[in-house]
Amino acid sequence: MAFDTAAAYRSYLQEAAVPQGFRFFTTTLSFVPPERPEAGESSMNLSFIESAPPATAVAVTTGNRFCGAPVTIARERLPGAPLSGIVINNKVANVASPTGVADARTVAGTVAREHGLSADAVLPVSTGVIGWSLPVDAMTAAVPDLLARPSTPAAVAEAIMTTDRYPKLAWRRSGAVRCLGIAKGAGMIEPNLATMLAFVVCDAAVDPEVLSRVLRRVTDRTFNRISVDSDQSTSDMVVVMANGAARETIDEAGLETLLEPVCRDLALEIVRNGEGTAHVIEVTVSGVPDSATAVRIARHVANSPLVKTAVYGNDPNVGRILGATGDALDTWDPTGTINPDGLQIAVFDRPVYRDGAFRLDGEVEAALADRLAAAAMDPTTRGFPQDRGTVPIHLSFRGGEGDAVTVYGSDLSYEYIRENADYRT
Amino acid sequence: MAFDTAAAYRSYLQEAAVPQGFRFFTTTLSFVPPERPEAGESSMNLSFIESAPPATAVAVTTGNRFCGAPVTIARERLPGAPLSGIVINNKVANVASPTGVADARTVAGTVAREHGLSADAVLPVSTGVIGWSLPVDAMTAAVPDLLARPSTPAAVAEAIMTTDRYPKLAWRRSGAVRCLGIAKGAGMIEPNLATMLAFVVCDAAVDPEVLSRVLRRVTDRTFNRISVDSDQSTSDMVVVMANGAARETIDEAGLETLLEPVCRDLALEIVRNGEGTAHVIEVTVSGVPDSATAVRIARHVANSPLVKTAVYGNDPNVGRILGATGDALDTWDPTGTINPDGLQIAVFDRPVYRDGAFRLDGEVEAALADRLAAAAMDPTTRGFPQDRGTVPIHLSFRGGEGDAVTVYGSDLSYEYIRENADYRT
Repeated sequence: MAFDTAAAYRSYLQEAAVPQGFRFFTTTLSFVPPERPEAGESSMNLSFIESAPPATAVAVTTGNRFCGAPVTIARERLPGAPLSGIVINNKVANVASPTGVADARTVAGTVAREHGLSADAVLPVSTGVIGWSLPVDAMTAAVPDLLARPSTPAAVAEAIMTTDRYPKLAWRRSGAVRCLGIAKGAGMIEPNLATMLAFVVCDAAVDPEVLSRVLRRVTDRTFNRISVDSDQSTSDMVVVMANGAARETIDEAGLETLLEPVCRDLALEIVRNGEGTAHVIEVTVSGVPDSATAVRIARHVANSPLVKTAVYGNDPNVGRILGATGDALDTWDPTGTINPDGLQIAVFDRPVYRDGAFRLDGEVEAALADRLAAAAMDPTTRGFPQDRGTVPIHLSFRGGEGDAVTVYGSDLSYEYIRENADYRT
Repeated sequence: MAFDTAAAYRSYLQEAAVPQGFRFFTTTLSFVPPERPEAGESSMNLSFIESAPPATAVAVTTGNRFCGAPVTIARERLPGAPLSGIVINNKVANVASPTGVADARTVAGTVAREHGLSADAVLPVSTGVIGWSLPVDAMTAAVPDLLARPSTPAAVAEAIMTTDRYPKLAWRRSGAVRCLGIAKGAGMIEPNLATMLAFVVCDAAVDPEVLSRVLRRVTDRTFNRISVDSDQSTSDMVVVMANGAARETIDEAGLETLLEPVCRDLALEIVRNGEGTAHVIEVTVSGVPDSATAVRIARHVANSPLVKTAVYGNDPNVGRILGATGDALDTWDPTGTINPDGLQIAVFDRPVYRDGAFRLDGEVEAALADRLAAAAMDPTTRGFPQDRGTVPIHLSFRGGEGDAVTVYGSDLSYEYIRENADYRT
């Protein structure tokens, strides 16, 4: 959906149907970074998503080998006993801090005890600067204020933002069952904010193993099919809670049908609101032997700096797409099972390369350049999403039986450099 | 070496000692692109490197699966009968042209016959726009003029440039034996110029198998350890000719000692003169089980857009280096043989991360930012190289027995976007 103003977007977000048994809280606190007292006072948002009754909860976490303390805790804790909530802070990622796990447990335990719950009933999650420790005292002191401020999913979606351009919220309904998600990310800046985070809550009753299977499959088709900066961050995490408060059962297929569009909407918004994103690039690969290889090829092309800058410049540069695809094949199909001669390339559904030759003339190029220009967003706009569609690039090979896959990426703009190269001051 | 003006650089290049038995020729011609008559007249440089006597010749070519016609021909032709020369054009890459191989053979054959040689005595090489065919008639018509214009290695190094900022030339001597190389690249623009090319000539007598082995090893340590755009182009090629005209023998180790610094100089200049390069980033990885994995990790970190933009902004952002390293381990060491806990990171030889924690304070960061600023070049300067050293990042793991490896990359600047996003007009 496209919006013209932040006010119109804000009023749309207020329509979100909150799943039963979930409450959202948020507050703000001040702290002095222990590692950088000279930086002076900084402001942090502290938020809490509560589930009563406690919810079945599962998580998918980053593969990055230098993961943050919250990722370590989530891997140990989930799936496990039902979870009563998630406490989330921005500003400090709690990565590469020697006291990270203990600090995170102290903060989450304080929220839990204040609520009359056991210490591990609340999961801690952080995003922000890498290398700083959590300001534990300031955070625990703010907990009573946090729990006294019930709020909305939209406000929490805004509170977990770092360099995001607008809050990201998606919801769906199936009978009496509601499913709602919020997300932040991706990109790392200022000087090293990290992380894609998504929290999805659902009021169906779901078995933990079913929830785990469904989340894995849905994540593979949504959050794992996007790329802004090409690297996974140290703190990427998707957490789903299902608390049964709707008193309606949902089977595995029904849950997947409900969860997938919520995760897909959030994943696409993460790309669309990426740092300096002016175009969303949609690379589809079909006709290769297996879908894992298809994803790698699609991701390689979507991450090519030369393809990304051409799209930013509204240049339908098929030569660069061909070049990136040839490099992707050499990297990800080293034994040569995919026949390059069978490749067809289409851009905006227009065939532009086939049988080893380009299908381009000045007229086709001008038409594609117009489509690219029409798909361009203003990367400096903040407060609401601009949806100008995507730039679809289809790489179609012959003979492979694997499913077609689609990866969403962003272009590479001046604004990206500006946001990422500015030295911390 | 650093130069202040194009004139000073030009006069330095005139000192190059040309190996015996080699001559360099270059001329300019006009053509109308057959695929784009509406684009009007365009200008092409046609150059020729001649060896008399004919030389032992070997090549290393791109792994890109969509390779240009010259790459196909070089793979068939080399190593083989001695080679009398290489004809090189810029402006048209001869990639994805249905008549590409025949066109290239016509051009090279015309040069050979005009010189009284057999048709395959001359190797054709091209760089430029992908998807256009060679203007064969205009090129063959220009051959007599080409062969009437003996020139210099510096002039040919300039003639093979596309978007290069300055000509790249390196030479060494060992006794009576001389070795000289020229190179262009890398980067793809305007709208899709491609290619890293290097041509090295040497007047020692060398067995083809020895030359092949030495070139493979040297390339692995030089041209294969650089990265500007992360993708291999469709036309990357390194060709070495050794003609024996110095009448001095050289053994395998001696040849390697002579060839390696020439290739290293050229490789570093390719990075330094990359599109929009303001810093050369030097990533060293040590202490991992094998050097192939070390190269992949180093390349992954050197190619991280977040690391590249931070370096461009003179920001000693260790969080991003750590994040990119953790993602590299997940990608290139999937079974987890490398222990992330053993990682130490040093920037400009200063330890900044050890035992899972940052070793940074405001003073260290300010000192590193000063070093980064001192290593910054002006990416808009043309005509001569600025050598401000590199930004050394050392990732030191524990326990692995593989050799330490170093990869050279470029940062990511506004100038890179400007050069790569401008739509062809």
